[in-house]
Amino acid sequence: MSAVPDHALAEALALATDLFDRLAAATADPPGITRASYGEGEAAAQAILADAARALDLEVATDAIGTLRMTLPGRDRGLPAVAMGSHLDSVPHGGNFDGAAGVVIGLAIAAALRAAGRRPARDLLVLGIRAEEMCWFPAHYLGSRALFGLLPRAAPDTLRRVDTGRTLADHMADHGLDPTPIREGRALLDPARLHAFIEPHIEQGPVLVEDGLPVAIVTGIRGSLRYPLARATGAHAHAGAVPRRHRRDAAMAGVALVAALDARWATLEAQGADLVCTAGILATDPDHHTSTKIPGLLRFSLDIRSLDAALLADLDAWLHAEAARIGAARGVGFDFGPPTHAAPASMDPTLRALLARQAVAAGVPVRQMASGAGHDCATFAGLGVPSAMLFLRNPHGSHNPQEALAMADVGAGLAVLVPAVAELLG
Amino acid sequence: MSAVPDHALAEALALATDLFDRLAAATADPPGITRASYGEGEAAAQAILADAARALDLEVATDAIGTLRMTLPGRDRGLPAVAMGSHLDSVPHGGNFDGAAGVVIGLAIAAALRAAGRRPARDLLVLGIRAEEMCWFPAHYLGSRALFGLLPRAAPDTLRRVDTGRTLADHMADHGLDPTPIREGRALLDPARLHAFIEPHIEQGPVLVEDGLPVAIVTGIRGSLRYPLARATGAHAHAGAVPRRHRRDAAMAGVALVAALDARWATLEAQGADLVCTAGILATDPDHHTSTKIPGLLRFSLDIRSLDAALLADLDAWLHAEAARIGAARGVGFDFGPPTHAAPASMDPTLRALLARQAVAAGVPVRQMASGAGHDCATFAGLGVPSAMLFLRNPHGSHNPQEALAMADVGAGLAVLVPAVAELLG
Repeated sequence: MSAVPDHALAEALALATDLFDRLAAATADPPGITRASYGEGEAAAQAILADAARALDLEVATDAIGTLRMTLPGRDRGLPAVAMGSHLDSVPHGGNFDGAAGVVIGLAIAAALRAAGRRPARDLLVLGIRAEEMCWFPAHYLGSRALFGLLPRAAPDTLRRVDTGRTLADHMADHGLDPTPIREGRALLDPARLHAFIEPHIEQGPVLVEDGLPVAIVTGIRGSLRYPLARATGAHAHAGAVPRRHRRDAAMAGVALVAALDARWATLEAQGADLVCTAGILATDPDHHTSTKIPGLLRFSLDIRSLDAALLADLDAWLHAEAARIGAARGVGFDFGPPTHAAPASMDPTLRALLARQAVAAGVPVRQMASGAGHDCATFAGLGVPSAMLFLRNPHGSHNPQEALAMADVGAGLAVLVPAVAELLG
Repeated sequence: MSAVPDHALAEALALATDLFDRLAAATADPPGITRASYGEGEAAAQAILADAARALDLEVATDAIGTLRMTLPGRDRGLPAVAMGSHLDSVPHGGNFDGAAGVVIGLAIAAALRAAGRRPARDLLVLGIRAEEMCWFPAHYLGSRALFGLLPRAAPDTLRRVDTGRTLADHMADHGLDPTPIREGRALLDPARLHAFIEPHIEQGPVLVEDGLPVAIVTGIRGSLRYPLARATGAHAHAGAVPRRHRRDAAMAGVALVAALDARWATLEAQGADLVCTAGILATDPDHHTSTKIPGLLRFSLDIRSLDAALLADLDAWLHAEAARIGAARGVGFDFGPPTHAAPASMDPTLRALLARQAVAAGVPVRQMASGAGHDCATFAGLGVPSAMLFLRNPHGSHNPQEALAMADVGAGLAVLVPAVAELLG
């Protein structure tokens, strides 16, 4: 398929710019924007995108659980479709781009193809997925897992939105949606009917800004091993009167464990491993701690992520052995509490190669990088759908009102994605 | 001076037992006892001891700031006195023995000398000192420093009791006391008029219990270097999306510093240094921390104690250099906040030798050990008064209702102290 003409890319970029402005205006909640999962802001965002899709003469539908489906029909409706998109919810007082950028860019690509007068072989299916931000309902990838019948069947009646205390089923009912497919474990989309899934997303870290690059091709989505509620328990005692050998200092033991993890991370990274480790919470007991008392309790969290599932398993075993060793030496007990695990997701090598090739052709400099955050794309990849992500440069991190996306970088993304998607569509 | 007869020691121990029972009953505040500095419990304790002193026909007086002075008069009133005692306040819901034991034992020694029919050359001055526990008024050794005119002159009007918010002057007025000497920086006791000061005190750590010994001779009172309000400041960021080299993780930097201090402590102790180090408070920001976010802030405290003032100064310099190194490597700033310093106090070698000799004579096994906690005795030693402390075994630490003191161990202490004090009195 030949190159997409410049005027088509320009129309796509103009549409994206307009959509971002309309989304920001419709869901403003200063500071920033709010699009609660199965709430008003998410519905308003869907309405704006659905209107734009109708203006492009796409097929627009909403399924039983509320996924927005916007289809540029292909010549052969029997072929598996090329899907794109992301989620339309946001954190409270978040930014305009986390999630929404993927749907807007999907629609802009449809606009570019329309403007170029193309009628490709396959359908282009642009998805506005529900409920990805865990701050509303405590479940990973709620909307994309529901789409494929992967949520626990009790979810509609047991998951409650954190801010309202009402169930997922209640919130779905607010919008005339039907939780029955979730309760029946029924998929609303057949992964075998998808030729590929591509999710554009703002980068949530500083790598592209530091490297001076507009976009990156994602190598994979890191899996995670998390202990959000770990604790070390020793014995409170007088800071001056207890010699080292008699201490059962929970803080020093916890510090030794976290420092050992940090040292091991440095070693593994130097060996080329993909790994990030975070102790997001360190807290001696605020009801009892004071600067002149040996702490008998340290609460802490660990969050360990890697593209390499075997490395995560190895580190888990190492962590428990190290804690046992440190605890025995220091008279302190470690209780890691319940872990959460998320499997790493590999991005499809053929899709990555296609994106890299189109970037070269378009003269857009890119890098390859892992996604440290989870994304709906992991659900698609986990089902065997060939999947890819393109990250767009964002200088201020995500989940805050300062999220930023330069339209020039959206243009760079479109310059890579439009011909790549056109090629996939055939 | 010949040995004190057994019946005199028995009478002394009976008095001590009775006084401990009466103190516990009069200041009960379940769980434990409460004797607030310049509060009701402290006054009640003074009244019980003053009554007992009068019953022993001692001279009983209270000075302008409320120090209880109980004197067994010597033959030569012109000679410098031998002083004993400790403080009579306690922490809220504390134990019966921290502080009070030193005053009770001082009075018991006077009783033993009376029972033995002795009239020594020097006065024996038993002091019931005010306000040693910093939990009430935020000042070290308030009562003993006031006694010697060492408090800041503004203290009566600027120090406020933590529980009431009222000034020291207000609380003194409740008891008909006069803050004028403090405001004038005037000493109410001349250190040159003291031949020695001996403070018996329960041990606040587990050493005597572990060693199976009833009493210990204190070698010195550790000085301290404290940073109660230190903080490491980096930048909050996504736990998954930011690579190691881009992180400004305040918790990992703080952990690295505390772990380095712990390692240095282990090295110095192996070389024979006297040292204890505590990070009593470790706290990521409870308003912003979560297990999936790199912490941008860690509040922490450091408490470093040693008998060796030069070692404390060296460690302070090392700490700042290490923090600068770690901070530069990790993009994190360290702000230690205001330090507090307390100088170490050496116990008098001649007094220590006297106590050791009398322990051998009495068949009481003892050890030598540093005091990790501060005591009023440090005020006396700092003024050049030859000073000593005897620790008594206590299985449960201090500042809690479980403080315990076996009367057999008080007996062992009296067996050492009565002949030692008798020898000092001449």
